[in-house]
Amino acid sequence: MRPSSSKIPYGGDYNPEQWPAEVWDADHRLFTRAGIDTLTVGVFSWSLTQPAEDTYDFTVLDRILDRAAAEGRQVCLATGTAALPPWLAKKYPEVNRTDFEGRRHRYGQRHNFCPSSPAYRGLAAKMAARLAERYADHPALLAWHVNNEYGGACYCDLCADAFRDWLRDRYGTLDALNDAWWTTFWSHRYTSYEEIEPPNALTEHWRGPDHTAFQGITLDYLRFTTDALLGCFLAEKEVIRARDPVTPVTTNFMGMFRPLDYHRWAPHLDFASWDSYPPLDAPPTWAALAHDLMRGLKDGAPFWLMEQTPSTTACRDVNPLRRPGELRLATFQAIAHGADAALYFQLRASRGACEKYHGAVIGHAGRDDTRVFREVAVLGAELEQLGDVSLGARTPARTALLFDWDSWWALEISDGPSRLVKYQEVVHAYYRAAREAGADVDVVPHTADLTPYDVVLTPALHMVKGDLATRLEAVAERGGTVLATFLSGRVDAHDRAFLTDVPGPLAPLMGIRIDEWDSRRPEFAQSIPELASEGRLVFEIVRLRGAEAVATYGSDFYAGTPAVTRNAYGQGEGWYVATALDQPGVDEVVRRVLDRHDLVGPYAGHAGVETANRTTPDGTRLLFLLNHTDRTAELKAHIAATDLLTGKRTEAGAPFALDPRGVAVLRLQ
Amino acid sequence: MRPSSSKIPYGGDYNPEQWPAEVWDADHRLFTRAGIDTLTVGVFSWSLTQPAEDTYDFTVLDRILDRAAAEGRQVCLATGTAALPPWLAKKYPEVNRTDFEGRRHRYGQRHNFCPSSPAYRGLAAKMAARLAERYADHPALLAWHVNNEYGGACYCDLCADAFRDWLRDRYGTLDALNDAWWTTFWSHRYTSYEEIEPPNALTEHWRGPDHTAFQGITLDYLRFTTDALLGCFLAEKEVIRARDPVTPVTTNFMGMFRPLDYHRWAPHLDFASWDSYPPLDAPPTWAALAHDLMRGLKDGAPFWLMEQTPSTTACRDVNPLRRPGELRLATFQAIAHGADAALYFQLRASRGACEKYHGAVIGHAGRDDTRVFREVAVLGAELEQLGDVSLGARTPARTALLFDWDSWWALEISDGPSRLVKYQEVVHAYYRAAREAGADVDVVPHTADLTPYDVVLTPALHMVKGDLATRLEAVAERGGTVLATFLSGRVDAHDRAFLTDVPGPLAPLMGIRIDEWDSRRPEFAQSIPELASEGRLVFEIVRLRGAEAVATYGSDFYAGTPAVTRNAYGQGEGWYVATALDQPGVDEVVRRVLDRHDLVGPYAGHAGVETANRTTPDGTRLLFLLNHTDRTAELKAHIAATDLLTGKRTEAGAPFALDPRGVAVLRLQ
Amino acid sequence: MRPSSSKIPYGGDYNPEQWPAEVWDADHRLFTRAGIDTLTVGVFSWSLTQPAEDTYDFTVLDRILDRAAAEGRQVCLATGTAALPPWLAKKYPEVNRTDFEGRRHRYGQRHNFCPSSPAYRGLAAKMAARLAERYADHPALLAWHVNNEYGGACYCDLCADAFRDWLRDRYGTLDALNDAWWTTFWSHRYTSYEEIEPPNALTEHWRGPDHTAFQGITLDYLRFTTDALLGCFLAEKEVIRARDPVTPVTTNFMGMFRPLDYHRWAPHLDFASWDSYPPLDAPPTWAALAHDLMRGLKDGAPFWLMEQTPSTTACRDVNPLRRPGELRLATFQAIAHGADAALYFQLRASRGACEKYHGAVIGHAGRDDTRVFREVAVLGAELEQLGDVSLGARTPARTALLFDWDSWWALEISDGPSRLVKYQEVVHAYYRAAREAGADVDVVPHTADLTPYDVVLTPALHMVKGDLATRLEAVAERGGTVLATFLSGRVDAHDRAFLTDVPGPLAPLMGIRIDEWDSRRPEFAQSIPELASEGRLVFEIVRLRGAEAVATYGSDFYAGTPAVTRNAYGQGEGWYVATALDQPGVDEVVRRVLDRHDLVGPYAGHAGVETANRTTPDGTRLLFLLNHTDRTAELKAHIAATDLLTGKRTEAGAPFALDPRGVAVLRLQ
Repeated sequence: MRPSSSKIPYGGDYNPEQWPAEVWDADHRLFTRAGIDTLTVGVFSWSLTQPAEDTYDFTVLDRILDRAAAEGRQVCLATGTAALPPWLAKKYPEVNRTDFEGRRHRYGQRHNFCPSSPAYRGLAAKMAARLAERYADHPALLAWHVNNEYGGACYCDLCADAFRDWLRDRYGTLDALNDAWWTTFWSHRYTSYEEIEPPNALTEHWRGPDHTAFQGITLDYLRFTTDALLGCFLAEKEVIRARDPVTPVTTNFMGMFRPLDYHRWAPHLDFASWDSYPPLDAPPTWAALAHDLMRGLKDGAPFWLMEQTPSTTACRDVNPLRRPGELRLATFQAIAHGADAALYFQLRASRGACEKYHGAVIGHAGRDDTRVFREVAVLGAELEQLGDVSLGARTPARTALLFDWDSWWALEISDGPSRLVKYQEVVHAYYRAAREAGADVDVVPHTADLTPYDVVLTPALHMVKGDLATRLEAVAERGGTVLATFLSGRVDAHDRAFLTDVPGPLAPLMGIRIDEWDSRRPEFAQSIPELASEGRLVFEIVRLRGAEAVATYGSDFYAGTPAVTRNAYGQGEGWYVATALDQPGVDEVVRRVLDRHDLVGPYAGHAGVETANRTTPDGTRLLFLLNHTDRTAELKAHIAATDLLTGKRTEAGAPFALDPRGVAVLRLQ
Repeated sequence: MRPSSSKIPYGGDYNPEQWPAEVWDADHRLFTRAGIDTLTVGVFSWSLTQPAEDTYDFTVLDRILDRAAAEGRQVCLATGTAALPPWLAKKYPEVNRTDFEGRRHRYGQRHNFCPSSPAYRGLAAKMAARLAERYADHPALLAWHVNNEYGGACYCDLCADAFRDWLRDRYGTLDALNDAWWTTFWSHRYTSYEEIEPPNALTEHWRGPDHTAFQGITLDYLRFTTDALLGCFLAEKEVIRARDPVTPVTTNFMGMFRPLDYHRWAPHLDFASWDSYPPLDAPPTWAALAHDLMRGLKDGAPFWLMEQTPSTTACRDVNPLRRPGELRLATFQAIAHGADAALYFQLRASRGACEKYHGAVIGHAGRDDTRVFREVAVLGAELEQLGDVSLGARTPARTALLFDWDSWWALEISDGPSRLVKYQEVVHAYYRAAREAGADVDVVPHTADLTPYDVVLTPALHMVKGDLATRLEAVAERGGTVLATFLSGRVDAHDRAFLTDVPGPLAPLMGIRIDEWDSRRPEFAQSIPELASEGRLVFEIVRLRGAEAVATYGSDFYAGTPAVTRNAYGQGEGWYVATALDQPGVDEVVRRVLDRHDLVGPYAGHAGVETANRTTPDGTRLLFLLNHTDRTAELKAHIAATDLLTGKRTEAGAPFALDPRGVAVLRLQ
Repeated sequence: MRPSSSKIPYGGDYNPEQWPAEVWDADHRLFTRAGIDTLTVGVFSWSLTQPAEDTYDFTVLDRILDRAAAEGRQVCLATGTAALPPWLAKKYPEVNRTDFEGRRHRYGQRHNFCPSSPAYRGLAAKMAARLAERYADHPALLAWHVNNEYGGACYCDLCADAFRDWLRDRYGTLDALNDAWWTTFWSHRYTSYEEIEPPNALTEHWRGPDHTAFQGITLDYLRFTTDALLGCFLAEKEVIRARDPVTPVTTNFMGMFRPLDYHRWAPHLDFASWDSYPPLDAPPTWAALAHDLMRGLKDGAPFWLMEQTPSTTACRDVNPLRRPGELRLATFQAIAHGADAALYFQLRASRGACEKYHGAVIGHAGRDDTRVFREVAVLGAELEQLGDVSLGARTPARTALLFDWDSWWALEISDGPSRLVKYQEVVHAYYRAAREAGADVDVVPHTADLTPYDVVLTPALHMVKGDLATRLEAVAERGGTVLATFLSGRVDAHDRAFLTDVPGPLAPLMGIRIDEWDSRRPEFAQSIPELASEGRLVFEIVRLRGAEAVATYGSDFYAGTPAVTRNAYGQGEGWYVATALDQPGVDEVVRRVLDRHDLVGPYAGHAGVETANRTTPDGTRLLFLLNHTDRTAELKAHIAATDLLTGKRTEAGAPFALDPRGVAVLRLQ
């Protein structure tokens, strides 16, 4: 169940409730000028729609939706439960979160509710139910948007009790729990569930959320928090579905967001959506990785780009401006990776509070003659022209990258070998290498069906669960290549070390054995001569047990021992990278793997030119070309194609140019 | 009402209550040797003068004042209410502050009282009353010194209630408050004052006091805290005044001290006084700016330098020593900027606790043959010689610089455009440029009468209130020049963005329009070719709407657009600087502005030589010359004058030399 | 009373309770292979041995000890009271610590008990008593290991009361306390003990434990905490001793561990033991200093190396691997400095929780063919071969270095002169200079008998107590040399400044007077031309009062004044270093001092070759040679000797080589 649309929905967050009527008039005039057809409404409206526990007031919301309908625009309607109204926090103090430091908060900010509090869950569901009853049949309604950017954790006594219940369900017996958490270490054997406290700064943690005495309890609290917030989502979704059986329901995710394991959420959303705010100075592949992760949530189905800024953020220490062309490029990149909607935060800039300087389609002066408005409007016209051609398309990837929240958590809360290894950075390095080599990549959970793939990358897969090792072996058996890295295959689902040689269940496939490892500050680098590369941070000392060395360490007592290995396995191969190679090293290794499967793309020689293939429901093959540089890219067509944005056709072998920050959407042959 | 004196009072904080009688004898002998005639007494004496709630004991204080009188010294008598006695904190736990983290403190440190606690206010006022009754007519009494360095904030429930009352007074209705704070954003519409919590780490803030979800409430809490502490001051002053109608009352300020808006306090002090501890490595203009700010509090009237160190501080990570001549230079700089007293912290070094290593006139060994003591004594003799000539003098400035706490707060608690722009740094850059060009500068509040000035500088005036824009336009109308900078004219008194083109109410005067701005890390610099300068941090993109470009950006997509503009307005001009220029760039722009009004001083070509003009009550014109370098400055007299420190007369055009770190106090012609 | 043994006990922490029986079998097989004869058992067994308040269960411990005995291994038996069992924390919430921030913790981690809680003390002592009753006569029992790595502090109300009692004992009257803490400063005169609060973030502190308003109370709380934890130790020791009059009792220290003054503990231990985890990149002298400090605890008697890692730590941000030979080198270094046992943490790696990646003799795969296991086994064989020759030996040092926790604390909690001076760094610089010059060094408390020494180093001796100055003068009187440094002789036992010239009681011996000092950021350096060295951080300005200048400052207004001085005193000398010299400067000064007493060693010219002399109970002279470099050291024997590890004899004057990271244990002549 996904929103139906005849073109890519275009628009974004809209808060007319903050403004008088004449501003509404101006808004709609400007929306029309910009090709904006979709409004996300009501995201923070709770204090307006329910000014007291027994008072609901939908007057303003009615006007907003009716006006939208009258103007021919669609609404993505939010339940608005991400920010409590003041009266609720005052009346039910337990709904305010208790933070990691053990402090009960009072009213303020947003994302401020305890997920275990019956008062919150009850009142939020009641609000969702009221909205569904009222607007299920509204002509403007396109999709339901539950809450907003779920996240954060609570450590109150209600959550402690809920956690204990969650543990009872998971473990059955205390013996099983004691064994899973390895509690005999440091005298922690629990004799009653009541003795278990949420792991935070007052209990198992020091130096913040990543330093815990017991990884087991901390991992489980991360899983519990994922489930607790998912419970909030489900409570709302359920009452909506009971009243509106047809309109798709989503909540907006945040890409690579560590606190929540979105793979546990994905089955419960009708379609995925997310808010893209890449870090400053991130390369284009950073946002692309997040897009592909979001696309992987629903087995490759398109997602919505629910938010991006048209110009600047506000919440960062410095907030650079998107330069001319960057917004268009980022938007087409999203579409190239699976976005079926392109929405902004925000349509009109807030006048006050902490987001007043956040970029908006319409600024404080309400003008349509700004550069930003013009770019938004031009893009609106292009999307209009593109129509429905890309809707519902899928990515024909033969390369998979496993992304695993459990491994992310386990790796980053581990004491040793190195606090400096960051999961996202390792994953991104391999993703980037594959993408810049021109391969389409599916970013998938460890439970994904791996049969469609020739290449499976499992960077930093610290935790190996279930039958994954067997399924990876099957990839190699039938001729595929599996590439793993340092710090993979170390722990089981409870973060207990495997009692076998490292890399644990991956060892047979990799054909190696590791007894020891060095970790060093980033200033120290090991040369890896065969790759003209350097390794850093972690240096696993590999003994070959069937594999062959692809590259070796250049110095120290383990000089000449393997840094990268290849193991013939069945018809295929297992590759292992034992250190954090620099990007050129990763690029070289990944390219060798892709080469073996003829997966290096036709434009891989053009640095900064991204390609992305899509196949539409009717079988049309689209190729997106994105020039991330500020130089014109001079290409030679590898196949005949028509650019849907210009209508221009190029024959195979013919030269064609891609403007600086330029985009082409090619229909192949 | 100001302290009357026949010469500049010289001395400082004195704590004989910490010492036995023989030390007192030594002290007074040394004071005489050093020319010390004024003692600040009783600043932390509460636990001594009131050892229990119903017990007052003034025995020691009597002895201190009587001894001072007997020795012919004057006393600045403190009420001593800045540090609670232990019994009070134990008996009334609510007087201990609740900090920004929401933690109720227990007894310790100083500046430790809740300003809203009736127990504190009552007992502090009672102490002030007792002191006034006892010492109003004491022959040594020169001035009242209420409390000490007021500052800090409390977030307890008493303060929460007081804040709500303060809000009721300010806003009248909740609708007005909701509108001012823009509470519809993030579902914050309050339906009762009781729902409002003090903004802190448990409510609206994250990452400390500068990161708030709602600027409106945080700004108002800063204003409330200013008023709450002012209320404490007024409670003491009132009971003193009732018992002593003639002795002037002050409290010692801290110059550019962000937590308190001293402009709200100024009308209530009989005279201003402050403690000068410039940051390490600050240029001389940093202290000068603070002096001029303090002088501006009482409309240009002289202030007291209540504290400075004779040698080192103790509270910093490193505490450099004042080198030979630096103390004298700093003291004459203070006088040049309006100080009518020169006092030290401290006369004798404490033996224990956290200030035992703080510099003192008399060290632990009690010697008079140290370098520091000798310098203090030489200076004492010079001040004796100077007599009353500078007392009551005023600065004949034609340049004003607006200093605005609201803008400071609003700028630095804002999310976006840049957390790296610091109000003081921007203000100081423009102040420094004007001062180093030889202009006398009045540092005034936004409400000041601007008619005396030819040039008005409004750096980083983020908030524009009341009729200020009109009064600035009037300056230009009659031929003056107004200079504004980036991030000015952005918000109204409630921190709501103006719904017009940036720079809001300043736009007509500036003749420009700004739609967008870039912000970047400090490593990135934009060249500004016309000024041979660089801009940093924020780059506003300016469109000319009547103004002309003075200088332009050198690169990026806005290359060639204006970075500095000048707009003819009436008989005068409006200048706008759209980026954080480096100091040479600011210097160049300010010098062009001053040149237009012939305000560049006669010694502006001598780097490191500061000039400051003063006009005495009888019309005598004094010119202070201060050589901040360690090289002799060779000058040519621009006018005939007599140096009051040496008695030497120099004719106009004659050469004269200023020693390294040397000072001249010239009576002109 | 020390453990009796026929060779150096070899083994370490062993937790078979975490594993099934088959693993135990494997363990003992591998122990035999590695020469492991000593097991530290039960360190974290409380939750196992006492699963409920009224239930003790020693089944598993019985099996562990019986098995050890059957295998011919000895047991160092821990009382296991360093980590609470969950039920205890739940039943007696007051046993959980209240931290520096004033937050009561809940159950978690280890070292988590309030030392003042009767419930903890009672139950811990009861456990110790039960163990002593049960195992006093067990054939495997070698030593008692009370608790583990005592440390941390608690700030709860029970501790507040205990602190008040401690103060009553120490001061007798409040007047004495008020005087000691100099409470008249900042109005702190206490009128009742009940008004005194533990000094923490809610009372006297800001910016953490080192920033206090009153050094006196903070120092006393550090002393109180030392005593409170010592009280816990004594409570256990007493009940053990009552049941087992013969087995020696220890607890494992942590070397230079700031929180606890081990000199106050030392008399109460039967023998000292400690856990050596030197900081990353620390030079070999860092660990050596800690060894010598531990040896100094019991007046030069040997200690146990209770823990070291065979390979890596886990708890640090990066955890480098011990390279081949480093473990052996570190172990022989410990023995050279006085270790009579060589134990590891840990024998088998934990499967879960925060130490699962900590190095172990036996890794997760249980192998004996790893490099680390092999090195452990080779070392085991060498220790076997060495037999009892080094047991009970003592170091014939003629150089003493005073190490003083009070000075450490006082220096680092002081406001001014510089927060950047770190006690350990100053001490280590002088220790390193002496050691690298080949001198044996005793690291002793300020109360030590100084008559055996020719040279006494007192770096950064901020606090001078008792008759120490007189005893130092006696060292010089009889011809010895005393060397003191900047920031010495500043405060008395209550951290009150001496009311005399700096360096206070050391001034007569040093023949100097200091009135003022500069402190600067580390980027600033003063050249010290005579030493071809640089000074940093603190620059005391010295006036000679009998001493002569050895070296002078090169610049600033105090250029040419002394930076290093020498004062003839009696038959000997007092040296003073007035700034933080770089290491070459310290080396030069210390070498001149040692030269005077002919204390520079025969191999001092060989950088990286450490020497350590030991004299066995029967008078045999041993010389340990340790090559800390990775190059072969070519030496010429200064005396005839036999290497006990190889049996090879070398005549005086003959060349001999020491392998990279090589060790020789020479029996001299």
